Amino acid sequence: MVNPQPRKRGRPPKQAPDHGDTRESLLRAGVATLTRKGFVATGLDEILALANVPKGSFYHYFASKEAFGAEAIARYGAYFAAKLDRHLLDERLAPLDRLRGFIANAEAGMRRYEFRRGCLVGNLGQEMSALPEAYRSQLDAVFMDWEARLAACLRLAQARGEIGSGRDCARLAHFFWIGWEGAVLRAKLRRSGEPLRIFAEGFFALLA
Amino acid sequence: MVNPQPRKRGRPPKQAPDHGDTRESLLRAGVATLTRKGFVATGLDEILALANVPKGSFYHYFASKEAFGAEAIARYGAYFAAKLDRHLLDERLAPLDRLRGFIANAEAGMRRYEFRRGCLVGNLGQEMSALPEAYRSQLDAVFMDWEARLAACLRLAQARGEIGSGRDCARLAHFFWIGWEGAVLRAKLRRSGEPLRIFAEGFFALLA
Repeated sequence: MVNPQPRKRGRPPKQAPDHGDTRESLLRAGVATLTRKGFVATGLDEILALANVPKGSFYHYFASKEAFGAEAIARYGAYFAAKLDRHLLDERLAPLDRLRGFIANAEAGMRRYEFRRGCLVGNLGQEMSALPEAYRSQLDAVFMDWEARLAACLRLAQARGEIGSGRDCARLAHFFWIGWEGAVLRAKLRRSGEPLRIFAEGFFALLA
Repeated sequence: MVNPQPRKRGRPPKQAPDHGDTRESLLRAGVATLTRKGFVATGLDEILALANVPKGSFYHYFASKEAFGAEAIARYGAYFAAKLDRHLLDERLAPLDRLRGFIANAEAGMRRYEFRRGCLVGNLGQEMSALPEAYRSQLDAVFMDWEARLAACLRLAQARGEIGSGRDCARLAHFFWIGWEGAVLRAKLRRSGEPLRIFAEGFFALLA
């Protein structure tokens, strides 16, 4: 997986005063656009306009649209892993309440963008037939990383007796992420958080 | 929703001997391509080539790519509803075994195309931000139609005591279709039926 190597804002390298910031702006614009409409429908011109970077200068920062996409996947994967950790490692809450908090936060996040933005990894996963083959293992690895974080939280819940001792928490986390991407897809289609809540309700019923 | 009005092969209208067949071929090619890679990545030239129809004659049969897409959605929705009925109305099997049969058939169908084809409605739902707004209610209506067919099957299972009497079968069917689209997405990404089986296992555990 590509390392996103975020550069600190305000501390660009001496040789090229704004190189780091411009690169960062392009990646941010890319993540926003890919999260909204996927890879194929996203034109480089649109990303350049959103990042307020002159047309034609894209290849100054990235070797290709493919290389840019790979960095955007890694960037989004890491951003989302940090978001998951903020919820799932929050020791002030019982483990399953942490997951409930993540789900409520995800719905609020989708609502903020009127359910126009979904999951970058889900969008690109859906488009995989039309994407560079190298993205396949990268996208799957991101899902496996998120699943591992959720499985650890479910094991904590299990240790406290909130999930039966015989249940396979890795499998439950895999189930969650398989279905959750469907819920995000449907929430975008319906412009509503209802599919997220229906899926969460079923998942918690499954744990009980 | 647009009515697909399939024309019978070999009985074209008298005025234009091959009009019906050509139109049918284009729709078949469209469904195959949209099922593989969605709407945005699908070019009309590709559909014409697949249907073996001369370039430039597309607008002879359809007013626009948008109108063509709407017919393809309706066509796929009806095709899939018939497939669901073949399984879910099969009185030789117990109701939940009918659903198991559908799931096994879906996996076999995806395997036949090496997990390159997914669900046309899921693909277009995922792309909705980049698609004609009129598709939104059409796609959602297809999902609701499929859910109603599954809910009827679950109610039969409930009447036989296979699902608890207090459970809301419409809600369970909604849950199934929300998560199933995530499973199809992940199966395409992984090129494996494993996500379909994991999701189905969780769904049946939820019913128990």
